[in-house]
Amino acid sequence: MHVIIKPEWLLGFVDGEGCFFVGINKNKSMRHKIQVLPEFTIVQHKRDVDILYQIKDFFGCGIVRVNHGDRWAYRVRGHESLIRTIVPFFDRYILKTKKQQNYLLFREVIYIMKNKEHLSQEGIDKIMLIKQEMNRQLPMPEL
Amino acid sequence: MHVIIKPEWLLGFVDGEGCFFVGINKNKSMRHKIQVLPEFTIVQHKRDVDILYQIKDFFGCGIVRVNHGDRWAYRVRGHESLIRTIVPFFDRYILKTKKQQNYLLFREVIYIMKNKEHLSQEGIDKIMLIKQEMNRQLPMPEL
Repeated sequence: MHVIIKPEWLLGFVDGEGCFFVGINKNKSMRHKIQVLPEFTIVQHKRDVDILYQIKDFFGCGIVRVNHGDRWAYRVRGHESLIRTIVPFFDRYILKTKKQQNYLLFREVIYIMKNKEHLSQEGIDKIMLIKQEMNRQLPMPEL
Repeated sequence: MHVIIKPEWLLGFVDGEGCFFVGINKNKSMRHKIQVLPEFTIVQHKRDVDILYQIKDFFGCGIVRVNHGDRWAYRVRGHESLIRTIVPFFDRYILKTKKQQNYLLFREVIYIMKNKEHLSQEGIDKIMLIKQEMNRQLPMPEL
């Protein structure tokens, strides 16, 4: 079945199912041994994997993969895709739930990385504080 | 914060968070001892209770109440509200996920009740079959 994705529908769907997340991993090969991995994801039961592919087509970036078990994820990790596609979309279409606050913090991290500040310890500290704030805003969903 | 609910946003939000459910209870005071209770619900963490009230305003029916723990629900149970407001909305705005199949089954139950067929054993049997089909379409979400 062909479905046309409209921006307002997608906004509502993300208000329900979307997730803005900043991963912080230890990575010995990196200068400050810390890798910052912001990602935008939407997870669905496999019966709705089609809609994830349609969202991928809408944005023109990201990947669709098994998440775990019966659940699949649409995921955007690339910095270029986040800054050129995901951030402009959510700057234009404003989330209506409290997820908006999380998005704004996520966006801050993207801009810190754009300015290469995450390559300094100061930048990493800043990102760690933002990440703490994100967790406060939006505890992990009860799955 | 005032938020304007647009139908397409609401559609996307319901594709993510909405639930069409048909409850079947034993009720000795009723003729066939079975009470059929279709309901449309949207459950959110209490931090997003505002959006539930805005959805209530948008539809002009239903109630907002604590669901359990930190979770609140917008719920429409009244047959008149379902048939005059909820069904026309989802007939006009078509859900994009597999939840649509569940909505169509839910709508069948509403029409069976509109025609008073649920007052006969035959009607109850019909509803039971539809309910089984709904469960097959959409297993309970992993909460």
